[in-house]
Amino acid sequence: MTQHKVLINGSWRAADAERYFEPFSPNTGTTLTDSYPASSWADCDEALSAGREAFVQMQTTPRATIAKFLNDYADAIEANAGSLVEMAHLETGLPTNPRLADVEIPRTCGQLRQAAMAAQDASWTTPTIDSANNIRSMLQGIGPVAVFGPNNFPYAFGSASGGDFAAAIAAGNPVIAKANSSHPGTTRLFAELAHNAAKANGLPAATVQLIYATSRESGYKLVSDHRLGATGFTGSRPAGLALKEAADKAGIPIYLELSSVNPVVVLPGALAERGEAIAGEFTGSCTMAAGQLCTKPGLIVVPQGAAGDQFVSLAAAGFDNAPVGTLLSRYASGQIDDTVAKLTANGAVVVNSGSAADDSGRFCHATTLLSVDGQNFIDNGELFQTEMFGNASLIIRSASNEQTIAIISQLEGNLTGCIYSDTAGSDDEAYDAIEPALREKVGRLINDKMPTGVAVSAAMNHGGPFPSSGHPGFTAVGFPAAAKRFGALKCFDNVRENRLPEVLRDNNPSDNLWRLVDGQWTTANL
Amino acid sequence: MTQHKVLINGSWRAADAERYFEPFSPNTGTTLTDSYPASSWADCDEALSAGREAFVQMQTTPRATIAKFLNDYADAIEANAGSLVEMAHLETGLPTNPRLADVEIPRTCGQLRQAAMAAQDASWTTPTIDSANNIRSMLQGIGPVAVFGPNNFPYAFGSASGGDFAAAIAAGNPVIAKANSSHPGTTRLFAELAHNAAKANGLPAATVQLIYATSRESGYKLVSDHRLGATGFTGSRPAGLALKEAADKAGIPIYLELSSVNPVVVLPGALAERGEAIAGEFTGSCTMAAGQLCTKPGLIVVPQGAAGDQFVSLAAAGFDNAPVGTLLSRYASGQIDDTVAKLTANGAVVVNSGSAADDSGRFCHATTLLSVDGQNFIDNGELFQTEMFGNASLIIRSASNEQTIAIISQLEGNLTGCIYSDTAGSDDEAYDAIEPALREKVGRLINDKMPTGVAVSAAMNHGGPFPSSGHPGFTAVGFPAAAKRFGALKCFDNVRENRLPEVLRDNNPSDNLWRLVDGQWTTANL
Repeated sequence: MTQHKVLINGSWRAADAERYFEPFSPNTGTTLTDSYPASSWADCDEALSAGREAFVQMQTTPRATIAKFLNDYADAIEANAGSLVEMAHLETGLPTNPRLADVEIPRTCGQLRQAAMAAQDASWTTPTIDSANNIRSMLQGIGPVAVFGPNNFPYAFGSASGGDFAAAIAAGNPVIAKANSSHPGTTRLFAELAHNAAKANGLPAATVQLIYATSRESGYKLVSDHRLGATGFTGSRPAGLALKEAADKAGIPIYLELSSVNPVVVLPGALAERGEAIAGEFTGSCTMAAGQLCTKPGLIVVPQGAAGDQFVSLAAAGFDNAPVGTLLSRYASGQIDDTVAKLTANGAVVVNSGSAADDSGRFCHATTLLSVDGQNFIDNGELFQTEMFGNASLIIRSASNEQTIAIISQLEGNLTGCIYSDTAGSDDEAYDAIEPALREKVGRLINDKMPTGVAVSAAMNHGGPFPSSGHPGFTAVGFPAAAKRFGALKCFDNVRENRLPEVLRDNNPSDNLWRLVDGQWTTANL
Repeated sequence: MTQHKVLINGSWRAADAERYFEPFSPNTGTTLTDSYPASSWADCDEALSAGREAFVQMQTTPRATIAKFLNDYADAIEANAGSLVEMAHLETGLPTNPRLADVEIPRTCGQLRQAAMAAQDASWTTPTIDSANNIRSMLQGIGPVAVFGPNNFPYAFGSASGGDFAAAIAAGNPVIAKANSSHPGTTRLFAELAHNAAKANGLPAATVQLIYATSRESGYKLVSDHRLGATGFTGSRPAGLALKEAADKAGIPIYLELSSVNPVVVLPGALAERGEAIAGEFTGSCTMAAGQLCTKPGLIVVPQGAAGDQFVSLAAAGFDNAPVGTLLSRYASGQIDDTVAKLTANGAVVVNSGSAADDSGRFCHATTLLSVDGQNFIDNGELFQTEMFGNASLIIRSASNEQTIAIISQLEGNLTGCIYSDTAGSDDEAYDAIEPALREKVGRLINDKMPTGVAVSAAMNHGGPFPSSGHPGFTAVGFPAAAKRFGALKCFDNVRENRLPEVLRDNNPSDNLWRLVDGQWTTANL
């Protein structure tokens, strides 16, 4: 059994380990043979000091060097895609093709290259110049960033490869990656590639560091340490909120992407016009990746009546016919069972008859579709919006558009919300009535498609009102916005020009750098 | 004795009061005859519900209406300046001229008019359009905003008139103003003018609400209530951090501007070149407004040796000759005494001989200048950076530029930091060595002038690393940035064009609205 090493301050070395753990293979349910350390506080402490030192050095590292590192790293991921896909499939059970090889690798590399562009052109720094008063300000790096990735996107949200990693580096911050313990080997391979690319470009030794696990107490200490600049966390609500409490108390920013049930509303006209197609989209969106997506539609509001009944039948058949995906965690199936039991005990009914497809030992759960009466949902809103992280979803049968508004008003903050309406305009009045209620509950409002796709776009908001995220003003996906989370606002008042950061001097150092000069956005010199 | 009313949901009505209190006159030390209620939770609860309702209405209020309200309000303040100045002088002891009438009234009105422009042109919403993917996003209002103003700027940071108020309204949010209990009458006059201007423009009844005080428990409930969008707080660190803890736990954003000692570093060349002038600036900056400014230089690092001794003598004489300003609070003098006692017990010495100028009963304290050895500061950094909110300051005598860096490394986060260097260039090497250490500790880095002036500028950062503020990414002063604090990021994905907010449609609704379209900032249509 191989005991793997942590990456601290430029060295792969044995951890100061409190214990070791072996990940599971979701494909077989068995323990893998590689062993990973849970670091003591001593490892965290050393990583923090090294990260702080690297941060200081990175503030004078040329933007082009950071950009080249990110591009080189993306190239290295593509060159090593084979071993990355093999490892991630082993550790997560996610399908090799298309998911890992054809979707998530390209997305991850594209994201790193967008981050490289953001680092290069520096527009994320939002330079703002008041020439009359000679006051100039910009965002600069915030400090070392701890990244806690989720279990469901080993690449695109991975601690050493994903969106938070890319955004933190683009903003000039070293990263202390805490691997998700369900795929430590995948994260290790990424950290090796990242560290090699950083070293080749002459970046500080601690630009990328990696630990695999800590005690809870060490985790709280880590996110609240004054040497840390910020934390990016994607994962479960209890874990995220506990870290948030520790970080908040210390005044260290923490950006969280937590649970979301992503309500979808199907209006009567849309149901009449294209109910079957919508049922198909819904089924696909709930069952791909075994429903383990932060933007899976966990609730769908469908009118009562014959057309709605037909929708339920179609969706139920779709659920039954969908392949039973592999779940990431050995606990996921039981968690779904627990929630289904609670929901059915309170009046929800299971409307499909799926069963888990095999008894190979792999982690899985029958695709499960439930239905509940709208009034019951309103009466028990907290219970019925419990997230089921997997291939299960809940249909809410609404008696009227007014009831739909009342249903929505029960919801907590969510990442997304979607309204399907007909193309002829018969739903427009209902849309106008319902939209404000949904709009205030969600970060991204969608028309006429499922929420599962999350484009890496400057206009994306992958965030939303609490508790879907920790602050409604920020997105975890999309450049330059995602990088701004890891910046601190720095003002220079009456500072002599030769002492200013390059991007704040009279001459704009780049054709692609937009600056807000005396109220006008421009790429020109002063 | 007049028992004053609260303004809730458009009505001035008797509070549901837990008690009443009378403010003091700092000019005489006596109690004033007007009496103000401390509201029970019932008042807060009603204000929150009314605020939520007003918020929903404000989301469809034309931008021009909000702008006109802010402009009308500024006009009304100017028209009523006489009574505002009289009341504020009575309640705060701040000088009528120039301070209240000639500085703070114009600043406050200018700020409201800048907020009106921000509301009108909507650039604070930062519209971002990805035309290829048809994804569009912007900041929209965050919800009702609770504003807690400080005691030291009854107008420009006042709960119903100042920067947070203006920023919250500009971003389309109603305000629940919690008056600072040292100037409830001033805040009441402002709320009357604001409410009348809001009513005249047809804004929702609860656009501006006012309470004067609550129990601590009600304050914590208020900032953590799910009906609230955010809080803006300016004031003392203990009060602010207690509110922050409550708000953080509920996931409701809170923006804080807390204490700051605003270190100033005088380099040897600057001392030789213009030590006397700098001593004069320092004295003026510490004694104006009796030193009760969030950006007062509370620490100044001066080299050891003869030139530094001369600086200390000049500053001490300046302190002795400065008028003894009136303090805002009956407790301020004792708080300064306590801190001076602690500092002198640990080796600081008082270097001037000022005494309080009179025994009229007014609140005041002798201007007080202390000095401490650099190494002693390094050994007791936490103690020696205790804020003295008033006309007192501490000189740190540094043995070398290396020691100056060590002194700075002891500092907590501050709003500002300043370096004085000579014009001939002999300080340049020292500047380059010291600047990075200071830069990371402060929100605004200044050259060659004292930090007390805070321009209302788009490039201003009136904020800084914790604990000077609650988040290093935001400024409390300057438009459009200050308004962004009170916005939530809202994305529209595949939303039909006629359903989009006006600012996100293909046609730009304003010549002055900058939008980030496919990576380019532009005022053009799509």
